[in-house]
Amino acid sequence: MEKIAIIGAGLVGSLQAIILAKKGYKVDVYERRMDMRKADISAGRSINLALSNRGWKAIELAGITDEIMKMAIPMYGRMMHPIEGETFFQQYGKDGEAIYSVSRGGLNQQLMNSAEALENVDFHFDMFCLDVDLETNEVEFLNTKTDEIIKHKPDRIFATDGAFSAIRSKLQKTDRFNYEQMYLEHGYKELYIPATETGVYQIDKNALHIWPRGNYMLIALANEDGSFTCTLFFPFEGEKSFESLKTKADVQAFFSEIFPDAIALMPSLIDDYFTNPTSSLVTVRCSPWNHADKILMMGDASHAIVPFYGQGMNSGFEDCSIFNEIFEKHNRNWNISFQEFSKTRKKDADAISNLAIQNFVEMRDLVADESFLLRKKIEKKIYKKHPQKWMPLYSQVTFSHIPYSEALANGKRQEKIMDQIMAKENIQQNWDTLEIEQEILRLVDEK
Amino acid sequence: MEKIAIIGAGLVGSLQAIILAKKGYKVDVYERRMDMRKADISAGRSINLALSNRGWKAIELAGITDEIMKMAIPMYGRMMHPIEGETFFQQYGKDGEAIYSVSRGGLNQQLMNSAEALENVDFHFDMFCLDVDLETNEVEFLNTKTDEIIKHKPDRIFATDGAFSAIRSKLQKTDRFNYEQMYLEHGYKELYIPATETGVYQIDKNALHIWPRGNYMLIALANEDGSFTCTLFFPFEGEKSFESLKTKADVQAFFSEIFPDAIALMPSLIDDYFTNPTSSLVTVRCSPWNHADKILMMGDASHAIVPFYGQGMNSGFEDCSIFNEIFEKHNRNWNISFQEFSKTRKKDADAISNLAIQNFVEMRDLVADESFLLRKKIEKKIYKKHPQKWMPLYSQVTFSHIPYSEALANGKRQEKIMDQIMAKENIQQNWDTLEIEQEILRLVDEK
Repeated sequence: MEKIAIIGAGLVGSLQAIILAKKGYKVDVYERRMDMRKADISAGRSINLALSNRGWKAIELAGITDEIMKMAIPMYGRMMHPIEGETFFQQYGKDGEAIYSVSRGGLNQQLMNSAEALENVDFHFDMFCLDVDLETNEVEFLNTKTDEIIKHKPDRIFATDGAFSAIRSKLQKTDRFNYEQMYLEHGYKELYIPATETGVYQIDKNALHIWPRGNYMLIALANEDGSFTCTLFFPFEGEKSFESLKTKADVQAFFSEIFPDAIALMPSLIDDYFTNPTSSLVTVRCSPWNHADKILMMGDASHAIVPFYGQGMNSGFEDCSIFNEIFEKHNRNWNISFQEFSKTRKKDADAISNLAIQNFVEMRDLVADESFLLRKKIEKKIYKKHPQKWMPLYSQVTFSHIPYSEALANGKRQEKIMDQIMAKENIQQNWDTLEIEQEILRLVDEK
Repeated sequence: MEKIAIIGAGLVGSLQAIILAKKGYKVDVYERRMDMRKADISAGRSINLALSNRGWKAIELAGITDEIMKMAIPMYGRMMHPIEGETFFQQYGKDGEAIYSVSRGGLNQQLMNSAEALENVDFHFDMFCLDVDLETNEVEFLNTKTDEIIKHKPDRIFATDGAFSAIRSKLQKTDRFNYEQMYLEHGYKELYIPATETGVYQIDKNALHIWPRGNYMLIALANEDGSFTCTLFFPFEGEKSFESLKTKADVQAFFSEIFPDAIALMPSLIDDYFTNPTSSLVTVRCSPWNHADKILMMGDASHAIVPFYGQGMNSGFEDCSIFNEIFEKHNRNWNISFQEFSKTRKKDADAISNLAIQNFVEMRDLVADESFLLRKKIEKKIYKKHPQKWMPLYSQVTFSHIPYSEALANGKRQEKIMDQIMAKENIQQNWDTLEIEQEILRLVDEK
C-alpha cells in the first residue's frame, strides 16, 4: 500500500485526503496549525467563500454533498448598493442557479471530519514543515507543541500548503522553476453586520451584497447565524486608502459619506476597523507543479488567486476532481498523471488568475455603469433564447465545467462581438430588436 | 562615519564599493566565494561580457577607465556565419562605435584591486550570508573556511549578490514584495576556439561572431590570448536540443552539419561539450528594491536579465551611476535616495529585461532574414542623414544613455513606422529614394 502525505489540512488538502483515501491509499495529513476543531477560529481575515459548480463537483466526488449543502446559503445574484438611491438586484445566471455562501471554518471542519472518519486517514497537527529532501522525498517537521523533529518518508507528497507553501519555497530554488508572486495595490479588511436581536438577517441573505465605489468596494456575504461578514477592498496608499484613514473620526466620516446604508447596520465598525488586520492580496503562479513522480502541488500552493471571481476554493477543488480524472484515465500511474496534470491544468489556473484580477474592476466599478449593464442585459437575452450559441462568461466560469482557459477565450470572442454591437447607433433604443439579435448570431457564426 | 556593507563582490558590488568609498564611507564587501584572485577562475559558464557606453560611464565615475580599456577588445559589429556561403559583417553603430569584449574574471579582479587600494574598503571572502535581520539590519555570515558565524551590523546594506540573491530571498517573504523568476526554454553551454599555435586569432577579433540558426545559435567573442569563448544557445528539449544530442557521434554530426565552419576551428568540441555544464537562462524581476533606508538591491539581485542585448553588466553598472546621481541630488539622504532609485529605476530594468528577451529572436533568426536586413539598412540611412530624428533602437540601448524605458518606447514607435514603410509595394527597389526618406520623416513628425 502506497503511503501518501498531504502537507496542509486546509480546504483542498482535506478534500484530497478523502478522495485518495477512498481509493485505498494510506493518507497522512500534516498541518502547521493546531486542530481548528478544538479552538476558536481566528476571525478577521476570512473573505467569505462562494461555493459554485466546480467546487460542488469535487465535493460530490468525495461523497459529502449533503453535509456541505446543510451549511450553505444560496446567493442568486448581486444586490447593488449605490451611494444614493435604491438597491437593485442582478441575477447571476438562470433561474435557480446560485453560488453558495459558506463559512471557511465550518467547511474545513466538515471536510476534516469526513476525512478522519475514514480508517486509512490520519491528521497530524502542529506540524511545521521545515524541509523536504527532493532526492529521498523525506519531509522534516517540527512539532511546535513538543519541539520534536518528526521525519516522514512518504511515497508521494501532495503539497496543499497554501499561497505561502513551504514545499514550493523549496522547489523555487531548483533550476528552471518558474515562479511569480504579485500583490495588488489594494488590501482588504474584514468588517461585520450582526443579526438583529431576534436573530434575523438585516439585509437579503440570498444575495451577494456589493457597494461598488469605482476604485474600491465593500461586499457582504451571509453567515448561518443571521449576520454578514463584510470585506472592504481598498487601496493601501493614496487619497482614499487604508493609510489615509488614520483616526476613528476619519473612518466614521468616510463610511458615513461613502457607505451610508451600510454604516447604519455596523455598530462595531470602528472597533472592527482598528482591531482587524489589513491583509494583502497576492497572485501566485509557478511551473512545473510537480517534482518528478514524487511531489504534486495543488490549490493555492501552485495558483493562489485574488478573490474577485469567487473561484479560489472552487479552482482548488476542481484540481482534485481533474487530477482524479487524469489519474484514473492512466490507471493510477503516478508519473504520467503528475506530469499531465502539471502540464494541462496550468493554463486553466493562469486563465482564472487573470479573470479574477479583471473581475475586480468589474465588481467595484463597471457594475454601476449603464452601458455595462445594457451589455449584460443583451447577453442575457441571447443566452436565454440561444443557449447553445451564447453563454455569458460569468456563467461559463461559475455554472459550467468548461475549462477556465476555454472560458477565457470564449469570453474574449464574445467581448469583441459585444464591442461591435454596443458601438451601433441608438443601441440603447434598439437593443431588443430582432435585427440586433440576428446581427449577434451572425457574428457568432462568423468566428 | 557610516558603515556600509556590500553583499557580493561581483562586478556591480566591487564597482559600487569604489564609488561609495570615494565618498568617504567605510565599506565592507562580503563575498560568498573565495578570493578569485587567488584561484583559477572556474571556466565553463562565463558568457563573455560586452562592455558598452552605459558600463563605461560608471567605470569612468570610479576613475578606472584606463585600467579596464587595456583589457578590452573592441567589436565594431556582428560577423554573420550562414550555414552555406560567405560570412558577412553588420556594423553596430556609427564608424568607431564599438562594444568591448572583456573577460568577466579579469574585469572583476581589476575592480577588486582598485577597490582594495582604497584604505576604507575591506573585502571579506568565504562569507556565506545566512540571514539578515530586517529589524536591526544585522547580517549573519558563515565563514565557510573556519565554520565561524560572523555577525555584522552596518548602517546600510547594498545587496549585489546576484540572480540568486540571499538578501532578496529574505525580502521575498515580506508582505507585498513582488517577485518573478522566469526561465527560458533554452539553455547555454560554453565552447572554445583556441588561438593558432603561434597565438594568432583564427577569425576576426573585432567582431561578435554569430551563427544564427533560427531556433538556436552559436556566438563567439575574442579573448586577449588569441582564443574565442563560444556559447551555444540551444533548447533544453525538443528535436534539436541538449536532450537530443546524447552521444559524441550525435554532437559531431550536428556541428558538422549545422556549424561547418565553426567545428573546423574547435578541436576540443567534444570534450568541452560533455565536460562543460548546461546552464539555464533566468529573468528576475522584483519590487521594491529597497527595504526602508536600510537595504538597497542592485544589479542581478534586483533585475537579472538574459544576455542577448549584452546589457546585463551594463545595466548593473548603470545602477551605480544612476544611484550616484540620485544620491548626490538629494545631498546623500539615504531614505529619499533608496526610495527614488527603487521607484524610478525599475521601469528601466523592466524595459531592458524585455528587450533582452526580444533580442534573442533577432539574433538567432531575424539577422538572417532579408526583409529584416533591408529594414535595418533603411534605418541606418535615415540615422546617418537625420541623426536628430532617428536613432536605431540598438544604438539607443548600446551607445546612448537614454533611459531604457524611453528607448523601448521610441523603438516601438519606430517599429510601427517601419512596418508601414516595409508594407509599401516595391520597397526592395525604392528604399533608397527621396520619396521614402520624406515619408519616414513625415511619419516621425506626425507622432
